[in-house]
Amino acid sequence: MVPKGFLFSTVDAAIKKPGRKDLALIVSQKEAAIAGMFTTNRVKAAPVKLDMEKIRSGRAQAIIVNSGNANACTGENGMQDAREIISLVAGALMVKPSHVYVCSTGVIGVPLPMNRIRPKISKLMLGLGKSTVEDVAKAIMTTDTFPKIVTRKIKIGGRTGTLTGICKGAGMICPQMATMLCFIMTDIAVRQKTLNKTLQGTINNSFNRITVDGDRSTNDTVLIMANGMIGNKHINEKSASYRLFNKALNDITYELSRMIVKDGEGATKLIEIQVRGAKNEKDARKAAFAVANSSLVKTALYGNDVNWGRIMAALGYSGIALREERTDIYFGKIAIVKKGTGTGRESKASNVIKRKEFTILIDLNIGKASAKVLTCDLTEDYVRINASYMT
Amino acid sequence: MVPKGFLFSTVDAAIKKPGRKDLALIVSQKEAAIAGMFTTNRVKAAPVKLDMEKIRSGRAQAIIVNSGNANACTGENGMQDAREIISLVAGALMVKPSHVYVCSTGVIGVPLPMNRIRPKISKLMLGLGKSTVEDVAKAIMTTDTFPKIVTRKIKIGGRTGTLTGICKGAGMICPQMATMLCFIMTDIAVRQKTLNKTLQGTINNSFNRITVDGDRSTNDTVLIMANGMIGNKHINEKSASYRLFNKALNDITYELSRMIVKDGEGATKLIEIQVRGAKNEKDARKAAFAVANSSLVKTALYGNDVNWGRIMAALGYSGIALREERTDIYFGKIAIVKKGTGTGRESKASNVIKRKEFTILIDLNIGKASAKVLTCDLTEDYVRINASYMT
Repeated sequence: MVPKGFLFSTVDAAIKKPGRKDLALIVSQKEAAIAGMFTTNRVKAAPVKLDMEKIRSGRAQAIIVNSGNANACTGENGMQDAREIISLVAGALMVKPSHVYVCSTGVIGVPLPMNRIRPKISKLMLGLGKSTVEDVAKAIMTTDTFPKIVTRKIKIGGRTGTLTGICKGAGMICPQMATMLCFIMTDIAVRQKTLNKTLQGTINNSFNRITVDGDRSTNDTVLIMANGMIGNKHINEKSASYRLFNKALNDITYELSRMIVKDGEGATKLIEIQVRGAKNEKDARKAAFAVANSSLVKTALYGNDVNWGRIMAALGYSGIALREERTDIYFGKIAIVKKGTGTGRESKASNVIKRKEFTILIDLNIGKASAKVLTCDLTEDYVRINASYMT
Repeated sequence: MVPKGFLFSTVDAAIKKPGRKDLALIVSQKEAAIAGMFTTNRVKAAPVKLDMEKIRSGRAQAIIVNSGNANACTGENGMQDAREIISLVAGALMVKPSHVYVCSTGVIGVPLPMNRIRPKISKLMLGLGKSTVEDVAKAIMTTDTFPKIVTRKIKIGGRTGTLTGICKGAGMICPQMATMLCFIMTDIAVRQKTLNKTLQGTINNSFNRITVDGDRSTNDTVLIMANGMIGNKHINEKSASYRLFNKALNDITYELSRMIVKDGEGATKLIEIQVRGAKNEKDARKAAFAVANSSLVKTALYGNDVNWGRIMAALGYSGIALREERTDIYFGKIAIVKKGTGTGRESKASNVIKRKEFTILIDLNIGKASAKVLTCDLTEDYVRINASYMT
């Protein structure tokens, strides 16, 4: 099921709670093209800083990831630790250090336990090929409750190519990516320039359109490696193959981002906020995020409380162009607000709000632009999980 | 203790839960100067729309307030209801309808129960003078757990003047005011122009510097009435009396805004976020609000978890000018971050974080601007209160 030529290994280096894998290695047997996108947070973790430099070369052979520690706000020592991990892996694999990428996720501000990581590198090497992609997806989890993997197969010039994406993320999730790591592997040959282009487009429609708690992390990273092992000619950006590839990548990132919100810390439901009839796309996005991030809206969703007034209030403070008397709101197909006032259909809408997944549609009726954002409800469990994350 | 010439009345009109007063009347025996500030939310409640028109005249004699229903998103009917209440009160008091102000707070989108309010107006009139300012402060409460009243006395030209402010608000609290109503009364003679000027300044340093949940309401209103009953000459803006008056008003609004945050829904502690060393004041404010509004910071504060990484992350995504390697963070007097990395003094800082009130100081060390914001922690109770507000 996974793309050809990718090997996996995972070990327990006691970075997270003992007994859980927390160090993972992804190796492409053949040097691969790579593209990436990184957090826009000005406080960037050491591994993010290093990978942002490396990615310029466009070439990669391995990714080493740890969970349980973000290696962020760790100063020059953190940079040295990340560099040491890279050189240990590069040395053992006998590849250039510039072709080894490093990612971390977990608590901010704590030095990496290098004394526990160092001795595990050789074990990681010995295990190469003995772990599955699912093992890796599990090893990168922090507060996630399930591993997140999506695979798509497409036909390229008579050959079958595979794309597999894995990711982690459940809290500190917001536009401009999240406390998330995402690794996408494919055996289709694609040049870095093309990878870059398609990756940016797909991320704007997926990871940049989700929110769990409005926070953005120091470590967000998406990497895509294409090793060309199926032997196709590099995909041309004007070809039908490109469109197929782009669609597969869109599917993968959208599905993974849905999984992240579904697994939102403490969340019990997944809600798509659709805004249409906005003056322009920026307004549509702003409106959707204002509603999707409102604590009052999210607690009402949790409590099965069709409190549409909180949606109106969020629209009102979002700063968008708005005419209260034109605004319509639907829960699923139930019109709960028409022209700015309630329709009294709360009891019908309460059948919708009780579902595990549903859509809230807001029609501003002043323009033609639209946007969608995925969000989840805010529960006591979110508070419990985050009140005691370190302890 | 209260300013001369103000009478109060409260009744139970069954708008909130039965048995709790929910309709209150404040009357100045003498026509008073009035100034006000209103929500910046584009979705404004009917009473806010009416009061914003009235306030231009600068004159007032009465304020009628109900809790339990916001009369927001209620369309033309909501406007008619608010106008009817005004005309009933004006008729009974035999004053101009333009001198009667109306305020509402509570659930959005539900028509006012006029059939229950109408018959209570005469009872409200009969009770004038039999209720205290504390009764009014209680009658305007929604999720508040205690009434909020602050009084200051000052000497103006040999006479003693009194200022008393009351307010309500506990959730939907954010910059640009909150789900809050605030009424300030004084028996000192002040012209509307002067009242306006001092009110704007004080609000920017008080109600616009607090946050409970980042939401902004449709009903926020601050009104100040000055009836001049102590017989002083109108305060001159260049006089020492003005400075005294301004200081008293600052004290009152700051104390009331502290009370709001302290009474934040589900909150167990009050935290002042101080930012200094910012490039400019806008950055300082943005940084302070990013930290003060972060769900991850607020849950960590609740859990007594000195998770300063979440503060760094919030600073990083706030969009301000920032040099990670210059940033210092203090919990009380304990330096927990120096030059962007941890000092390891978590155990000392954990004595601070357990307090009911403390300060987090962030020194960006790149400029000279500073700002302060008051916030509270985010608890399971916040979720519980807001998941079942309507039901």
